[in-house]
Amino acid sequence: MNDAKISRFPTPQISDLPDDIRARILAVQEKSGFVPNVFLVLARRPDEFRAFFAYHDALMDKPGNLTKAEREMIVVATSNANQCQYCVVAHGAILRIRAKNPLIADQVAINYRKADITDRQKAMLDFAMKVALKAYAIGEDDLAALSAHGFSEEDAWDITAIAAFFGMSNRLANVTSMRPNDEFYMLGRT
Amino acid sequence: MNDAKISRFPTPQISDLPDDIRARILAVQEKSGFVPNVFLVLARRPDEFRAFFAYHDALMDKPGNLTKAEREMIVVATSNANQCQYCVVAHGAILRIRAKNPLIADQVAINYRKADITDRQKAMLDFAMKVALKAYAIGEDDLAALSAHGFSEEDAWDITAIAAFFGMSNRLANVTSMRPNDEFYMLGRT
Amino acid sequence: MNDAKISRFPTPQISDLPDDIRARILAVQEKSGFVPNVFLVLARRPDEFRAFFAYHDALMDKPGNLTKAEREMIVVATSNANQCQYCVVAHGAILRIRAKNPLIADQVAINYRKADITDRQKAMLDFAMKVALKAYAIGEDDLAALSAHGFSEEDAWDITAIAAFFGMSNRLANVTSMRPNDEFYMLGRT
Amino acid sequence: MNDAKISRFPTPQISDLPDDIRARILAVQEKSGFVPNVFLVLARRPDEFRAFFAYHDALMDKPGNLTKAEREMIVVATSNANQCQYCVVAHGAILRIRAKNPLIADQVAINYRKADITDRQKAMLDFAMKVALKAYAIGEDDLAALSAHGFSEEDAWDITAIAAFFGMSNRLANVTSMRPNDEFYMLGRT
Amino acid sequence: MNDAKISRFPTPQISDLPDDIRARILAVQEKSGFVPNVFLVLARRPDEFRAFFAYHDALMDKPGNLTKAEREMIVVATSNANQCQYCVVAHGAILRIRAKNPLIADQVAINYRKADITDRQKAMLDFAMKVALKAYAIGEDDLAALSAHGFSEEDAWDITAIAAFFGMSNRLANVTSMRPNDEFYMLGRT
Amino acid sequence: MNDAKISRFPTPQISDLPDDIRARILAVQEKSGFVPNVFLVLARRPDEFRAFFAYHDALMDKPGNLTKAEREMIVVATSNANQCQYCVVAHGAILRIRAKNPLIADQVAINYRKADITDRQKAMLDFAMKVALKAYAIGEDDLAALSAHGFSEEDAWDITAIAAFFGMSNRLANVTSMRPNDEFYMLGRT
Repeated sequence: MNDAKISRFPTPQISDLPDDIRARILAVQEKSGFVPNVFLVLARRPDEFRAFFAYHDALMDKPGNLTKAEREMIVVATSNANQCQYCVVAHGAILRIRAKNPLIADQVAINYRKADITDRQKAMLDFAMKVALKAYAIGEDDLAALSAHGFSEEDAWDITAIAAFFGMSNRLANVTSMRPNDEFYMLGRT
Repeated sequence: MNDAKISRFPTPQISDLPDDIRARILAVQEKSGFVPNVFLVLARRPDEFRAFFAYHDALMDKPGNLTKAEREMIVVATSNANQCQYCVVAHGAILRIRAKNPLIADQVAINYRKADITDRQKAMLDFAMKVALKAYAIGEDDLAALSAHGFSEEDAWDITAIAAFFGMSNRLANVTSMRPNDEFYMLGRT
Repeated sequence: MNDAKISRFPTPQISDLPDDIRARILAVQEKSGFVPNVFLVLARRPDEFRAFFAYHDALMDKPGNLTKAEREMIVVATSNANQCQYCVVAHGAILRIRAKNPLIADQVAINYRKADITDRQKAMLDFAMKVALKAYAIGEDDLAALSAHGFSEEDAWDITAIAAFFGMSNRLANVTSMRPNDEFYMLGRT
Repeated sequence: MNDAKISRFPTPQISDLPDDIRARILAVQEKSGFVPNVFLVLARRPDEFRAFFAYHDALMDKPGNLTKAEREMIVVATSNANQCQYCVVAHGAILRIRAKNPLIADQVAINYRKADITDRQKAMLDFAMKVALKAYAIGEDDLAALSAHGFSEEDAWDITAIAAFFGMSNRLANVTSMRPNDEFYMLGRT
Repeated sequence: MNDAKISRFPTPQISDLPDDIRARILAVQEKSGFVPNVFLVLARRPDEFRAFFAYHDALMDKPGNLTKAEREMIVVATSNANQCQYCVVAHGAILRIRAKNPLIADQVAINYRKADITDRQKAMLDFAMKVALKAYAIGEDDLAALSAHGFSEEDAWDITAIAAFFGMSNRLANVTSMRPNDEFYMLGRT
Repeated sequence: MNDAKISRFPTPQISDLPDDIRARILAVQEKSGFVPNVFLVLARRPDEFRAFFAYHDALMDKPGNLTKAEREMIVVATSNANQCQYCVVAHGAILRIRAKNPLIADQVAINYRKADITDRQKAMLDFAMKVALKAYAIGEDDLAALSAHGFSEEDAWDITAIAAFFGMSNRLANVTSMRPNDEFYMLGRT
C-alpha cells in the first residue's frame, strides 16, 4: 500500500468514526478489498459524508433505463473535462468492470467522440458534457436530441443529475487533492 | 400567485408525496409563507430530494466560522457565474435577509469585486469562484491566500463544499428550467 | 444618501461643471429625484460626457420598432455578461419601469433564456449577446434568424448599436468602479 | 476604386446627407484624398454619426500625455483581438503614419508583446487588452502597474476610454461587415 | 538591415552550419534576396531544421488541388488566431504574391469571414480554424461541409496537415520570439 | 487483434509502401510486437511520413538533459489537454515504461498538478501546457520560472519543441480519428 497523502486536509482514523459511517466503510472494504479514498477524505464531515453517499447511491444504484456502465461513462467523460484525477481513475475502473471492456474508460475519458460506444451513447455524453460545461444554455433542442435517440424524460433527468453530482464531486476532489487508490488503476483491465 | 410552469419536468402534488417530504415542505411553507419551487421540482425523486436537502442543511445550517450571510454570498456569486436564475433570485433573497442589507445580493451577483463587502469576503469569493470555474488549478497558493485573511482549514473546506454543492444545484436548476417563486424577488429589499 | 465612493477617479462638483452639462444633470435630478452616478462620473470629461449622452439618447430615446422595454432588455442582458454592476442595477430599474414588470430585470440579467419574455425577444437577445461576446462571427445566418422573427434591417442595426454602445459603457463602469445609486435597487419593484 | 459592397446595410449618397455630415465627409476627403468607409456606413444614422465622431475626436484628437501613435496602438491591438478588419486596417495605416514606422502596425496587431515598442507601451497595451477582454476583473493592481510605468490617472482614463470606444466600433464594423478602403492598406508603408 | 534580435535563443553563423543546411539557406537567399529568419532561428538544431523544412515542403510545394494561394490562406488565418507575428507577416507576404492580390493577406489574417475570397475558400478556412482551435470536436459534419464545397478527401488531409504543421510553427515562433524580416512587410503590396 | 477502423482516411497495405517506410515499420513491429497505428495512418503520404518521424526522432531520441520519461510526460499532459486519444494512450504506455511507474501516465494525463512527480517536473509541465494552450503569451517570466528549477536554455527549447510537435500530432490524430492499438492500454501497467 502506498503511503502518499490522500488529502490536503486531515483524514480521520476509521476507528474514530460514527458507527454508521464506519460500518459503511468496512462494508466497502469487505466487498472491494480496499477502502476507496473518497470515503476517508469525506468522513471527516459525517453529515456531509452521509448526504454525499445517499445522493450517490440514489443516482448510481437505482433502477432506470441507463445501464450502470452508461452512468459510469457520464462520470468518466465529465470528470476528465473537469480534470479530476480521483474520479477518472476510480470511476474508470468501475466503468471497465461494468462494461466488461478494458479499453473503454480511457477512450471515454480522453475523447468520447472516438470511443467504442454507440451513437446513442455519444448523444448521451454530448448532453452530459453540456450539463457539465454550459448548463445555462441547455434548451429544448438539446432535450429533443436526447429524445431522438430514445431517451425518456426520466433518462434526461438521470443524465443531468449524474453530470451535476459528479461536477460537485470533481470540485471537492480537486480542492482536497484527493488521491486515487493505487488499486483502481489496474481494475478491470485484464 | 403566478401560474407559470416551474419546471420543464412534471412536478408532483404535495398530497402525493412521501410523509417525510411532505412534512418538510409544509414546514417550509409554514415558516416562509410559500413553498420555494426547488422543493416541488426535486420532490419527484424522493431519494434525491432527501440527499439534496440533507447536504444543503449540512453545509448551510451547521455551526462554523463563516456567517450565514457569507455562505449565501458564495451561493449568489457562483450561481450568477453559472447563470442560474433560480439560485441567484432565491439565495439573493436569503442573503439580503441574513446580511440585513437590501443592496448586497445584486452587488455580489453581478460583480462581487465591487460589492460593499470586506476584503476578507472578497478573498473568500475569489476562492469560491475558482472552485466554481477552474477547481483543477487550485493549489497551495490559493489556500495560502485564504489563510492570509484568517480563514482556517475548516473554513476552506466550507467555502469549497458550498461552491461545489451549488454548482450541482445550478446545473439541476438550469436543465429543469426551475422557476424562482415570485415572492423571492422582493424579500429583504425593504 | 450613501457616502461610498462613486468612482475610482475624482468626480467634479456639479457647481463647477460647464453650463450645458450642469443643466442636463439638474434636469435629470428634477425628473428622477436623484442624480444617477454615471452623470457625475463621466462629467469630469465634458466632451466625452456630451458625446456619450448624445449617443445614448440617439439609441435609447429615438422612435423605432423596438419598444423602450426591449432596448433595456438588451442593456441588462449584455451588461450582466460583462459583469457591469452599474449598468445591470440602473438599467434593470429602467427595464422594470418600462415593462411594468417587477421581475423581468433580474430574470433577463441572470439568464434571459428563462425569462418571462417572448420567443421573439429571446431571439433579439441571442443576437445581442453574440454582438457582445463574439461579434466577429456574426453572419448572414444570424441576421436571417432575426428576420424570421419579424425584425427589420433597422431593428438589426438598433440591436447591434445598443449592445455595442453598452459594451463600451460596461467597460467604462468596470474600470472606474462606477457605483450604482442606492435608489435604483428598488425602483419599479412595487 | 473598388466597387465591393462597403456595408451589409444600405449606405446613403453623400449628396443626400445633412449639411454638417456632408461637410465633415468632404473635409475628410479633401484631407485624405478619399472618404474612409466608416463615414459612409455610419451616415445613414445622422444622430449616431454625430455622437460617434464627437466621441472619437474627444478621445483621439484631444491633448494629453499619450502620443497620437500610442492611442492608435491601443486601437490596433484591441481591434485585432476583436477581429475587426476595418479597424485594424484603417487604424493600422494611421498608426504607421503617426509613428513614422512602416512595420509597427502589423506587429502591434498580431502580437503586441513582440512589437518594436517600449516596455511602457507594452504595459499600456496589457491594460488596454484587459479592458477589451475582461474589464470586470480590473482592479487596483492593474492601475498600479500602469502607475509604475509613469502613467497618470488621466492616462489610465484615456487608455480605458479608447479601448472601450473602439470595442464599440469593432462590434459595429463586424456586424455591418464594414469594408476597409483599399487605400488604407498601403498608407504609411513607404 | 535591422539589427534587432531575431530570436530569444542564440542563432548560429551561416558559415558554421552543416553543408546541406548552409546550402539550403544560401539557395533561399539567392532566390529571395534575403534569408528569412526562420531558417536562422531553427538552424541551431540541424536535425529539427531538416525535418521541419522537409515537412514544410511536403505540404506547401507538393502538387494537389489546393492552390498555393489557398495553402497560404490557411497559414495566415490560423497563425493570426495563434497570434504568431512571424508567420502572419512572412506568409502574408507569400499569400499576396501567390494570389497576386495586395489586400488579401491582411483581410484573411484579421477576419477571413470578411475577406475577398470565395465561399468555398471560406469553408476551407472554417475547417482549418477548427483544426487549429478545437480539433477534438471535428466530426463527420465538418468533413461533409468540406465535401459539399467540392473538396476531396485528399484536400481535407491537406487542409488539416497545413493547419496542424503551422500550429507547431506558431508555437515555436512565439516561444523563440522569432522576428519577421523587415523585407516581408512590403512584399507583394505593389 | 481488433478490426475496428484505424483512420477516417484510407490506409495503405504495408506491402505497397516505399522500401524505406516499409523497413521502418517492420523494424518497429519487430521491436514492439505490433505496428503502432500512427505508422499506418501516416504512411499514405510518404514524404509527410518521413518528415514526421524524422522530427519525432530528433526530439524524442536525441541526447539531452530531459529524461525520456520527462519528454513523454510533456506528450501525455498536452495531448490530454488537446483531447487526443491516440497520443494519450500510446505515449501513456511509453511513459509508464520509461518511468517504470504504472500509475504515472494516468495521473499526468488527467491533472499533472496532482501527479507523483517532482516540483521541477510540474514546472516543466506548466511551461509545456502554456506552449500548448497560449504560446502567444509566453514571456521572460515563464523562461525565468524554468531557469529557477535548473532548466537550461536547451531544455526550454526541448520542452517547447516537444509540446509544439505533439500539438501538431494531436490535431492530425483527431481529424483522422486515429485509433490507438489495443496493445498500448496494458503496456507498462504490470
